[in-house]
Amino acid sequence: MPRHAHQDPNILRLNRLGIDTYREPVIYMTADCPVCRSEGWTAEARIQLSYNGRSIIATLNVVTGSLLTPEEVDLSEIGWQMLGARDGDLVSLEHPPPLESLSHIRAKVFGHRLSDSAIKSVVSDIVDGRYSAIELAAFVTAFAGGRLDLDELVALTRAMTSTGERLYWGHAPIVDKHCVGGLPGNRTTMIIVPIVAAYGLTMPKTSSRAITSPAGTADTMETVAPVTLDVSAIRRVVEREGACIVWGGAVQLSPADDVIISVERPLDLDSHEQMVASILSKKLAAGSTHVVLDVPVGPSSKVRSVEAADALERLLCAVGTAIGLQVRVARTDGSQPVGRGVGPALEARDVLSVLRREPTAPADLRDRALSLAGEVIEMGGTTPIRTGKALAERLLESGAALEKFEAICQAQGGMREPARARHIHVVDATRAGVVAAFDNRRLARIAKLAGAPRAPAAGLELHAPLGTKLSPGDPVLTIHAETPGELDYARAYLRANPQIISLDGSG
Amino acid sequence: MPRHAHQDPNILRLNRLGIDTYREPVIYMTADCPVCRSEGWTAEARIQLSYNGRSIIATLNVVTGSLLTPEEVDLSEIGWQMLGARDGDLVSLEHPPPLESLSHIRAKVFGHRLSDSAIKSVVSDIVDGRYSAIELAAFVTAFAGGRLDLDELVALTRAMTSTGERLYWGHAPIVDKHCVGGLPGNRTTMIIVPIVAAYGLTMPKTSSRAITSPAGTADTMETVAPVTLDVSAIRRVVEREGACIVWGGAVQLSPADDVIISVERPLDLDSHEQMVASILSKKLAAGSTHVVLDVPVGPSSKVRSVEAADALERLLCAVGTAIGLQVRVARTDGSQPVGRGVGPALEARDVLSVLRREPTAPADLRDRALSLAGEVIEMGGTTPIRTGKALAERLLESGAALEKFEAICQAQGGMREPARARHIHVVDATRAGVVAAFDNRRLARIAKLAGAPRAPAAGLELHAPLGTKLSPGDPVLTIHAETPGELDYARAYLRANPQIISLDGSG
Repeated sequence: MPRHAHQDPNILRLNRLGIDTYREPVIYMTADCPVCRSEGWTAEARIQLSYNGRSIIATLNVVTGSLLTPEEVDLSEIGWQMLGARDGDLVSLEHPPPLESLSHIRAKVFGHRLSDSAIKSVVSDIVDGRYSAIELAAFVTAFAGGRLDLDELVALTRAMTSTGERLYWGHAPIVDKHCVGGLPGNRTTMIIVPIVAAYGLTMPKTSSRAITSPAGTADTMETVAPVTLDVSAIRRVVEREGACIVWGGAVQLSPADDVIISVERPLDLDSHEQMVASILSKKLAAGSTHVVLDVPVGPSSKVRSVEAADALERLLCAVGTAIGLQVRVARTDGSQPVGRGVGPALEARDVLSVLRREPTAPADLRDRALSLAGEVIEMGGTTPIRTGKALAERLLESGAALEKFEAICQAQGGMREPARARHIHVVDATRAGVVAAFDNRRLARIAKLAGAPRAPAAGLELHAPLGTKLSPGDPVLTIHAETPGELDYARAYLRANPQIISLDGSG
Repeated sequence: MPRHAHQDPNILRLNRLGIDTYREPVIYMTADCPVCRSEGWTAEARIQLSYNGRSIIATLNVVTGSLLTPEEVDLSEIGWQMLGARDGDLVSLEHPPPLESLSHIRAKVFGHRLSDSAIKSVVSDIVDGRYSAIELAAFVTAFAGGRLDLDELVALTRAMTSTGERLYWGHAPIVDKHCVGGLPGNRTTMIIVPIVAAYGLTMPKTSSRAITSPAGTADTMETVAPVTLDVSAIRRVVEREGACIVWGGAVQLSPADDVIISVERPLDLDSHEQMVASILSKKLAAGSTHVVLDVPVGPSSKVRSVEAADALERLLCAVGTAIGLQVRVARTDGSQPVGRGVGPALEARDVLSVLRREPTAPADLRDRALSLAGEVIEMGGTTPIRTGKALAERLLESGAALEKFEAICQAQGGMREPARARHIHVVDATRAGVVAAFDNRRLARIAKLAGAPRAPAAGLELHAPLGTKLSPGDPVLTIHAETPGELDYARAYLRANPQIISLDGSG
């Protein structure tokens, strides 16, 4: 029950300074504030704030200047958002209860098995915002690298599902498709969903934004139509069109995943176990029953070898079975980017040219999408094995897929053409040779330095797939950026790393 | 070479707002600042700032309010300190070079062995402030839990030594003593050093502040004399008195350790490997040749079992041998706190009463200190084995040790009596019984909730050692705090955890 300000010295007034600290809530307080003094708080203390029945935990930054009076506190922007408070409101402050679940992280560091309830308590605390950024980093690091057995991984997946929203559709099958990522430009979802929906299956697709890549499907789709829909809007779209392509983060499916990603991204640490828990918890929460997983394998993809793909497939199928999901893994070629564009708008252009059956549409993207759509159709429908792809091709070529895609975009709030970048730079071959290999990780890095995915039109366009014979002066790739500074960074990185595209032959 | 402001758009003016973010430098910049826009920086970006030949890397917080103009940036207090800049100075901003050594952390997460040069590059980047807090958390977590082999641990120790200052004394032996910690009140160093120096050996003792405990030796010594001395001041003290007791952090011995501690502390994660590298790198950097290590063993100490002590001893001796240090491990009883006080000033009072030969001096602290002083004397001198302790006792009883301690304090800047807390609370026994066990970790937690080590007079005093027969109403312990809020937190924690002191017998 809230206590009155004049009775409780731990109540202070909020004063909004406007500081954005990304995901971690920070509380600003003066060193000579009476609460700070009586509680003995110093910079980096964790403090629980309560307002109107809600509580959050924030990290203390101490204001030594004159930004605040001793009777005032500020929150970073994410804190205002989480607490739902307004300028001038009163908040009460106290020590948070000890974070008992951190002992499970320590136990995992020292090699112990964790019980289901231990894992559940870690995930609950993460979802409740009780982990600081460094505690999240310790969690991500301690749980990576093959340190979870199957039972622990199943428990993690279940805990991530049960701590968020769940969608129920009232019928089966509900089909889905997901790519484990790592291959720039692999934007098949936006082609598969309209084909499968045109066939008549229900495919409510929730996609993620980029983790460590230059674009996620949600980023790419957003350049064509709105993707931030709430649960009732999603339900309306799916009831009308049989499918949607929306951002999963807006509907709190497996919300632990979004918090975990906020630390995985800067650490560039993406372990198999966390990937499996992340993917399957979201599919289960979305109400899926049959899932096709696209696993690109290649030397610079996320999955680099057949052995790694075998290990990942075993994990995906084992966890899928344990949680009642039918999972089929489709391994695909991960040796080079798919399509021409890398970056949200550039990838959307590739997708649209396939759906529109343009003669210049990237054949590799089209072929991958048809194969995967065929697998989804075979898995969820009554189509015999090895006939799904041909069926998918007929639905694409008839224009049924394009019509369905446009209808989905309209249902989600309206279709638009993807933006074009204001600054571009064409990189030419400096010598003759045949394109022999791509370093996908470094290609992705160029696109990111150019501004993707934050700047939707940024990224790169590849003009020379594997096997292309180049003469000096032939265009190899074009960098797209929304600012000159970003264009320069991407160019400088490419200059410093010319081996990103390897040429064989006379030089 | 610095470029001119009117030529380089990446130069902005510093405006000091006064925000203390503890160890991690944060840069504040407006979202519509031209640099932010052209570089594509958003909250949590890592940015390199240069000023007057110095560079630091800071994490971006974006100011959306009116605290700064688009032409201004602010730094958190640690950033001003590291950069050595003043209000109004111009700084240039750029993307930091990619943090290549993070790939070694990832390799360790996935179970790979690291080369000497890989480990060296990680430690160099840490010392240079290139790791963010979450990257440090990933380092600490990935390197803990038995994941380093001996060669890796030796490489880590050497890298931590070589990236900081080193002291050279021009003669041998240089003796030292260190406790691996975990036992509240175990403040023998301040007794051993004057005994050993009175005997004639050179013992330039650098101590640390508390990591996860309520007091480190440097915190305790600081309640009696200054401990923040630079290298030339330390040299002067040691030349005059043969010994010192100073804070190691002020002289940049193994500076990586101080950075690592800033993350280990909030994570409460203190692994054997990191402990060994931390201790031995500091000893090597301090110029020591012979080191006695006190390893308290007990069910709630840092080292909980004979097996754990064996493993730690093997690591300490193996790494010591590899880096050319003679190491002797002395296992001591870790079943209960040593002396009566827990917390800087309260522990200093115990030390002074032993040195002053007061009849009420804690016998356990006195006996431990004499045994360890005997081991140091035997190791560094010509005294036959098993005669060191008797020799130490004569030096204490003659007053030579007290005289030497006072001389050391004077040489360090003057001696004072430790402070007394303004708020105390005596906890009485509620039933009859015999004191059967202490939970040292939770006792330490009470002292920390009461304000130790930040508040030097805070902590607790134990009135009933193991085996004490208590009647209802007998005092069990006294909590000391400098603020009423902290006293309340410590009392509330003790009420919620009455099993911290277990009683056997009639109740």
